[in-house]
Amino acid sequence: MDVTVEPEPFAADATLADVDEERLLAAIFPSFAGAGRDLVGPGDDAAVVMVRSGSIVATTDSMVRGRDWLDGWSSASDVAVKCLTQNLADVAAMGATPTSLLLSLVADPATPVAWVAELAHTFGTEASAHGVTVVGGDLSSAPAGTLVVSVTAFGELYGRDPVCRDGAAPGDVVAVRGSLGRSGAGLSLLQSGAADPAAADDLVRDLVQAHLAPRGPVADGVVAADHGATAMIDISDGLLRDLDRVARASDVVIGLDEAVLARFAAALTPAVGADVALECVLSGGEEHSLLATYPRAEDVPRGWVVIGSVADRAGERPGVAVAGIPTAPRGWDHFAG
Amino acid sequence: MDVTVEPEPFAADATLADVDEERLLAAIFPSFAGAGRDLVGPGDDAAVVMVRSGSIVATTDSMVRGRDWLDGWSSASDVAVKCLTQNLADVAAMGATPTSLLLSLVADPATPVAWVAELAHTFGTEASAHGVTVVGGDLSSAPAGTLVVSVTAFGELYGRDPVCRDGAAPGDVVAVRGSLGRSGAGLSLLQSGAADPAAADDLVRDLVQAHLAPRGPVADGVVAADHGATAMIDISDGLLRDLDRVARASDVVIGLDEAVLARFAAALTPAVGADVALECVLSGGEEHSLLATYPRAEDVPRGWVVIGSVADRAGERPGVAVAGIPTAPRGWDHFAG
Repeated sequence: MDVTVEPEPFAADATLADVDEERLLAAIFPSFAGAGRDLVGPGDDAAVVMVRSGSIVATTDSMVRGRDWLDGWSSASDVAVKCLTQNLADVAAMGATPTSLLLSLVADPATPVAWVAELAHTFGTEASAHGVTVVGGDLSSAPAGTLVVSVTAFGELYGRDPVCRDGAAPGDVVAVRGSLGRSGAGLSLLQSGAADPAAADDLVRDLVQAHLAPRGPVADGVVAADHGATAMIDISDGLLRDLDRVARASDVVIGLDEAVLARFAAALTPAVGADVALECVLSGGEEHSLLATYPRAEDVPRGWVVIGSVADRAGERPGVAVAGIPTAPRGWDHFAG
Repeated sequence: MDVTVEPEPFAADATLADVDEERLLAAIFPSFAGAGRDLVGPGDDAAVVMVRSGSIVATTDSMVRGRDWLDGWSSASDVAVKCLTQNLADVAAMGATPTSLLLSLVADPATPVAWVAELAHTFGTEASAHGVTVVGGDLSSAPAGTLVVSVTAFGELYGRDPVCRDGAAPGDVVAVRGSLGRSGAGLSLLQSGAADPAAADDLVRDLVQAHLAPRGPVADGVVAADHGATAMIDISDGLLRDLDRVARASDVVIGLDEAVLARFAAALTPAVGADVALECVLSGGEEHSLLATYPRAEDVPRGWVVIGSVADRAGERPGVAVAGIPTAPRGWDHFAG
């Protein structure tokens, strides 16, 4: 089908206050083309999403300007990539295949239309690259300064059992798919002012990009499920904090191998120094790598790295130990002062 | 199963900044008990929702403090009822049965824990009364002053075709299920300061309540579908604006019967006067009554009121006419200045 999309009929400096909501939506919807497999896409009271396998995996996550991103650091496109990755990683961490999403924007009317159009365009493009369709969403106005981007993402298990947080058992090995500490190191570089793009070397630029627009191993959640993963979570708030959630849900102690973590840290050290590097590996958030437990080392899929093992808590509190030493969960707490 | 829920371990004046996220969630989750029919409820990376009929209806809607509610007028419980109604009405307007929802909060850390607990409690109670389960959600912190409550609601069609906005055909009749203009009249009373609870009479109190905590005819969406409704929408932004959406999607002209609308207005007149009453009927938003078109008058279910009919647009622009006079859509536009 040939579709002729008219150019956006907005001035370059237009804000949301200048444009009619219906026209804005008409300009955005072409970014979400390709919704053919769904019964009803954007523009009605609700979307109707085909479900092939008896259940749907659903998760929601928001990004807030001033807390989750700063306009001085992140483009609208960066925000789109990060918000998409956060949500798709949560679907993947259930062992599911992401299929579709709803996109919501709560925005100060002074928000530039161009920012919204860039956000929508990147959402459409990046979601499509994951085989994910944008099927709907919502626009709400907000007081001055407020800008919140929210996604609800859907996935299917296609007959697999969901991989929850509470299935880790003593004797399991713990493995990670993806990087550790890169997003945290990028944040550290941004905060220290060491990330001047003109002066920065390749590693610094890569780490900053890993923070601003992280991409997770979204397709590997299904691989983990097919290899018998007993528990899984993605790294949203830091390795220690997220593994602590698995440990408490499963009522076990997870022991991490200091030597393996040190190798992950060594890759960051040239940019941030050894001490910051190890702390980023242990507690850096927004990495969106997958952490899973497997019954035996030979179950661990290719490309995953074993970083520890699961032990009976033997009367101790469930939690995480590094090199045998119980370690308090640290990392991002949304409301901490 | 006996479940012992410990009392919330928070001080009466605690804010989100004072409490640990995990403890806060542990205190809130009991409000969402009864998720037995879902495979995975709150507390994992994502929810897993059973889908019995091959597709899921999904919609999302947000409420923003300072735009969609004022703390001086609305309690946390009012906000919960209104946000729930908005979302369930969208599911109903597809001809679907609401089944479950995700609840998200984007909140300034200074938000009282008691406010959040009241919101969660009312969500759990009211959703349950509709047979709807709270299966998950998200907590995000926000800059000072920001408070956003978002819901993604799910429903099932159980073999019915979705009732979209684009199915109205010339010769159809237009009917409403529920009230017209009551929420708008309540808003008008609040804005004029005429709604002092001590002095107000029953009608004023009812209208104010209809604005602060509207309840829609959620179960009647399925009734409309079973009676052959050709198009349906709920009144979110006003009768004229929402019917204009149906008219444009269906490429028709919808004619409204002035005498019938006047009867709806007459019910409001003692509280707000005749002129405001008619304007509330025509353009008052947040009513969440259902508007549907049916092929014949005898298809219209009991309890619905016929308010107009659908005509071929005969070369004119699609839209809405009152007493034969084309009427520009007016009502709530989220980003208008």
